[in-house]
Amino acid sequence: MAEHTIIGKSVRKVDGIELVTGKAKFTADMKFPGMLYGYELRAGVPAGIIESIDASEALKEPGVHMVLTAKDLLGPNLIGVLPPFDQPVLPDREIRYAGESIALVVADTREGAKRACRNIKAVITPIEPILTMEQALAEDARKIHPQGNVTFSRTLTKGNVEQGFAEADVVIEGSYTTTFQDHCYIEPEIACAVPSGDNRITLYVSCQSPFHIRGHVAANLNVPASKVKVVQAYTGGSFGGKDDAAVEIGILAGTAALKLGRPVTIAHEREESIAGTNVRHAAEIAYKTGARKDGTITARQVKVLLDGGAYASESPFVTMKAMIHASGPYAIDHIEVESTSVYTNKTYAGAFRGFGVPQVTFASESEIDELAKHLGIDPLELRRKNGLKAGDKTATSQVYDQSVGYLQTLDAVEPSLRETGTKENDGRYLYGTGIASVIQGISNGAEGVDVVGASVQMSQDASVLVGCGLAEMGQGSRTVFSQIAAEVLGIPVDWVTVRQVDTDAVHDSGPTVASRSTTVGGMAVKQAAETVRQSLVKMASLMFKTDESMIVLKEGFAVLTVDDTARIPLRDVATAAYWTGFPLMHLAFSQAEPADFDHDTHQGRVYIAYNFGTHLMHVKVDRYTGEVEVLKHVASHDVGKVVNPMAASGQVEGASLIGFALGHMEKVEYKDGIIQNPTFADYAFPSIRDRIPTETIFVEDPTPHGPYGAKGIGEPPVAAAAAAFANAVSQAVGHRFTHIPITREDIAAVLQEEV
Amino acid sequence: MAEHTIIGKSVRKVDGIELVTGKAKFTADMKFPGMLYGYELRAGVPAGIIESIDASEALKEPGVHMVLTAKDLLGPNLIGVLPPFDQPVLPDREIRYAGESIALVVADTREGAKRACRNIKAVITPIEPILTMEQALAEDARKIHPQGNVTFSRTLTKGNVEQGFAEADVVIEGSYTTTFQDHCYIEPEIACAVPSGDNRITLYVSCQSPFHIRGHVAANLNVPASKVKVVQAYTGGSFGGKDDAAVEIGILAGTAALKLGRPVTIAHEREESIAGTNVRHAAEIAYKTGARKDGTITARQVKVLLDGGAYASESPFVTMKAMIHASGPYAIDHIEVESTSVYTNKTYAGAFRGFGVPQVTFASESEIDELAKHLGIDPLELRRKNGLKAGDKTATSQVYDQSVGYLQTLDAVEPSLRETGTKENDGRYLYGTGIASVIQGISNGAEGVDVVGASVQMSQDASVLVGCGLAEMGQGSRTVFSQIAAEVLGIPVDWVTVRQVDTDAVHDSGPTVASRSTTVGGMAVKQAAETVRQSLVKMASLMFKTDESMIVLKEGFAVLTVDDTARIPLRDVATAAYWTGFPLMHLAFSQAEPADFDHDTHQGRVYIAYNFGTHLMHVKVDRYTGEVEVLKHVASHDVGKVVNPMAASGQVEGASLIGFALGHMEKVEYKDGIIQNPTFADYAFPSIRDRIPTETIFVEDPTPHGPYGAKGIGEPPVAAAAAAFANAVSQAVGHRFTHIPITREDIAAVLQEEV
Repeated sequence: MAEHTIIGKSVRKVDGIELVTGKAKFTADMKFPGMLYGYELRAGVPAGIIESIDASEALKEPGVHMVLTAKDLLGPNLIGVLPPFDQPVLPDREIRYAGESIALVVADTREGAKRACRNIKAVITPIEPILTMEQALAEDARKIHPQGNVTFSRTLTKGNVEQGFAEADVVIEGSYTTTFQDHCYIEPEIACAVPSGDNRITLYVSCQSPFHIRGHVAANLNVPASKVKVVQAYTGGSFGGKDDAAVEIGILAGTAALKLGRPVTIAHEREESIAGTNVRHAAEIAYKTGARKDGTITARQVKVLLDGGAYASESPFVTMKAMIHASGPYAIDHIEVESTSVYTNKTYAGAFRGFGVPQVTFASESEIDELAKHLGIDPLELRRKNGLKAGDKTATSQVYDQSVGYLQTLDAVEPSLRETGTKENDGRYLYGTGIASVIQGISNGAEGVDVVGASVQMSQDASVLVGCGLAEMGQGSRTVFSQIAAEVLGIPVDWVTVRQVDTDAVHDSGPTVASRSTTVGGMAVKQAAETVRQSLVKMASLMFKTDESMIVLKEGFAVLTVDDTARIPLRDVATAAYWTGFPLMHLAFSQAEPADFDHDTHQGRVYIAYNFGTHLMHVKVDRYTGEVEVLKHVASHDVGKVVNPMAASGQVEGASLIGFALGHMEKVEYKDGIIQNPTFADYAFPSIRDRIPTETIFVEDPTPHGPYGAKGIGEPPVAAAAAAFANAVSQAVGHRFTHIPITREDIAAVLQEEV
Repeated sequence: MAEHTIIGKSVRKVDGIELVTGKAKFTADMKFPGMLYGYELRAGVPAGIIESIDASEALKEPGVHMVLTAKDLLGPNLIGVLPPFDQPVLPDREIRYAGESIALVVADTREGAKRACRNIKAVITPIEPILTMEQALAEDARKIHPQGNVTFSRTLTKGNVEQGFAEADVVIEGSYTTTFQDHCYIEPEIACAVPSGDNRITLYVSCQSPFHIRGHVAANLNVPASKVKVVQAYTGGSFGGKDDAAVEIGILAGTAALKLGRPVTIAHEREESIAGTNVRHAAEIAYKTGARKDGTITARQVKVLLDGGAYASESPFVTMKAMIHASGPYAIDHIEVESTSVYTNKTYAGAFRGFGVPQVTFASESEIDELAKHLGIDPLELRRKNGLKAGDKTATSQVYDQSVGYLQTLDAVEPSLRETGTKENDGRYLYGTGIASVIQGISNGAEGVDVVGASVQMSQDASVLVGCGLAEMGQGSRTVFSQIAAEVLGIPVDWVTVRQVDTDAVHDSGPTVASRSTTVGGMAVKQAAETVRQSLVKMASLMFKTDESMIVLKEGFAVLTVDDTARIPLRDVATAAYWTGFPLMHLAFSQAEPADFDHDTHQGRVYIAYNFGTHLMHVKVDRYTGEVEVLKHVASHDVGKVVNPMAASGQVEGASLIGFALGHMEKVEYKDGIIQNPTFADYAFPSIRDRIPTETIFVEDPTPHGPYGAKGIGEPPVAAAAAAFANAVSQAVGHRFTHIPITREDIAAVLQEEV
């Protein structure tokens, strides 16, 4: 299969038309007879004790059907992404962040439910909130959770950093911070629970991990998981954010639906989405890097502190991910990274595209630039000197024989660096060019099981239905899966339909995270399609009365290898196969090679592959206003194999914009534990007019672990774009910014000082 | 697996509670925003030419959205169960039966659509209808279809009947007729088509062959099959009747929904169900049977004519089935059966529980009783003498080594025969006892492919979701599948949920017909569960650190064979298996052993197994009124293995009641090609008060082709009950009735003559 007919082509997004024409049905479009609406009452104080909740007045309002508080829940009232499960659906006593829901009102209309919330009398005794990691880690700090204020802490040890620093000619140190970022998906969280008339409950939900939701909803409804069907509706973005939130409102809507025997929808407003549900971890990161004069990095020691807010959510994953990636795409003998997430009385932090990698990459790449300056070495050459190659040992001492295309990404941006790096400042404008590299592990690896189920079902008319346990959230997986099935089966892409995920039809495939859709999901689709292909080839060989090896499937036909005009339409082959009893459907499991990992030192085989990338940003800074314009943005990534150039470029553009916004615009601002900018009127995030001129250059160093060699690309650009922006602006302004976002105000402030 | 914990137990119907509490959602319960309703205009003449259809007035009525006629359809306007596909969705020119739909009105309400129908001006030129098989087969008959008036005709030849008759001491002949019978399910046909917002169409439908519907709907909507999802809603009975009808209204509703972009429901009234959709074939059957004095049957020659009405529908299947079963459960060396179905201008005939077997069984068993009388041999002894045993050759010369429990069913009814057979008539009441035997092939056999797909998915909480491509229509397959999955996985039955069928999630499993659910469907569920079981046993062996052979799964635990107290809850095993990457879901295919059949002589391996049965009916006939009371009904069947005694007995009771009604009550009455009794006011069928006192005696001679040895039982009692009734009444009255139904009026008429 050296030549592909569909893989590698810019096939149009298969669900694009229904999306742009408005035909696609989002959860808010789903209406069922007798449907009711829920609205959550939120605590309003960052820490406190619920003394009482009196809903009697609210219940008197016309159209109000029910008020749920913790005591009304049917199950253990406990959720979480992975241990420690520490989050109540509704707290029965202690409030841990201001946006926390404490009651649900269910009414005929959403407005009615919201209005009734005001008539609930919640008596809450405030307690002193813990608002910083410093406060949280103070020796005598109040414990936000019984086990203390450290959510999760791990240390990675490769070699011996003391020895590494001893070997160094230069040792530099730096401290970096990042802030909370909201996901800002256009569609806020929403769930609709429907008692489905067969003694089951169906949950239509905007989400990314249907099976995770099923498990938690069933447990908290106190029914077997098999009684809950989760259907992922069209999802208007998620970026990691709809894991926990969908579970919360799924349980609340499900509980109300079960108790009332009627469909119940809960739809968040923007304010609830920002203040109530998870955000990207803020971080405080300390780096110490040692190098020889020739640029060889001998050691890196890193301390990462992640502010996880009130609950664990995905803090353990993010903590590990930050730890593993902190030393960057470099072959360094001595590494020590201590990574810790901490509870505070703020909105909990969870998964967000990049998953801990953007924070450490910003810090690491800033420090690499600083090291280059110290050593007087060109920043790109310094990276090239230390960059990982096939055969090198990663931070976890894993060795990849192939698909380590990092150095080529440096090569790819080099011409732009040489071209823009010489641009001189003029009176009003400062120019700067920065590069930054990223390494990002693909799929769950040692963080969890890596099984994906996918089904491929061919009908007698040779049209194909693909199901996969991973969710389409805009990343284009339905298109990629269509291409893979079409490639394997030799049919046009538009004969393939990838259906929406529901938990009934496929194996629990884990969450749609960690850039794993194309790689692990695509592998499952490929396997399933290949099994169906066997039935077709077998049937065609019977019809042609020849050997199976003489048959190829292409263009919707079974064709003889020796005579391209000898063709049988695949619909005839499929019909014959069906009637002959050759199965035309297969449910496949792709399981990533299991990790082999020491959870003390964090050494071993951790991910099936890494995506490597280098970004270049060339910026123009207005000396008077601090305004920044990105004049050039080159993003080069080793993706193994590009399945769909248009879609892959789209992923790079989208992720880069989030990275750019992380580097330049977005921050959740707190005052006394209350978010000050929970609406799009106050929270700055990029609109279409803030798009940066991303130019993508793909490197293709195929991995045996992905379909046709492909590796994920959904997340890595976030980190590289944010870091490249920081390096570019720092160079332009002549000042090392150690905090992101580096806003226009920050830049103006520095420039003002200089004046 | 000699001992079963769940198989063989009278587990309560798993969907019984939602059904009896009214929670189960039937198609009519489904409401969607903007839903419209369709109503069909019917021809009203049994044969004619459509000159024009003018809907302009109807379209002016408020609330009317659309009138569809043949020219508005999107696809080939052609349906059918199997070749010849000869039926239009809406005829564009020729009308072939009075109940045929010629237009669809779509309006805001059903009533509005029905009202508007009256304002459609259809100009139809009537043509002389062909109303009897004799007319249809006349040499110069008008051709109802281009290929002529013979729908399907086949001859089975075993041995040489001439020789057989030459060897006989006695040859008797008889002619028998049966009439059309309506399915009389409580829920008439209904379909609801919903444009599902993902560029697909979802069809909720009361049906029994979702994949068959999907194929026809997609073809006639001119979309790939993968764009259509058929969901079998709770189905209020089908008995074979909802195959064609669901296709017709599915296409009509789907076409309207696609064109209007809104959900459309079509729900039949009873009159439409009886006059518009398929019925059981009426038959004219001639038998010639030769025997030696000792009772050995030497030859049977049979001619079967089946009135199939206007379209082929399942006539070919029914024709074959009648042919193969016509000679009864007897080892006869010389058999010739000619079986022919014929077109007439009447409502088309299709599948109906029993599928051709009741008609021939009534005739055959009547003739066996007549032969016994001629020979002076006890009817039971005559059957015993000729009855098939393991190793004998069937009518198709197939030899079964096992699961031929026919003679035991004779043994089972013998005590009742000896007890009731001596009852003497008194002044007013005549008493009679009749027995009749049946042989009925299980599953599709040579009539089609016999693949069933089933999925078993265990969640981390060890609850199980089962999916199967076969439909639950009341026969209890969800209960049987639950038992099989629970037995294999060692869990309580209530941990298992069998979900409703939809075409997205499983392999095309063919129609739910031919008593194949338990046998072929159950085999698929068993296989799927066994694969999941392997993951659990493997995981448990790792947890116990022992051999897999040391593990049993029972009562929801993994247990050590050597120590019953060493137990790990299966939810812990399942969770561990999931996180270890052992698949917990499997999609299995059970494929029946392929037939090996000569389609000229109809000799060879035709079915995977046969169900054998003998019924006894003891009746009391009122000499003055003709009223019959069934005093005793014993039904004995070899079902291989009883999976659920309560459910299996329920199947026998239900099927026997349909057989009793066929023998005694039901007939579709025509006058000039128009059905005279298309409502329940005029069409007599059994109510709960007509239940007969069925006593079931199961024989268990297991088949290797069914799960735990089980064979289907859904259909065979129909034939045996009808035939036993006829024999009992004939004996009581002292008159051989050669036509069913033998109504009270028929009996009274005979008795009156005698007076």
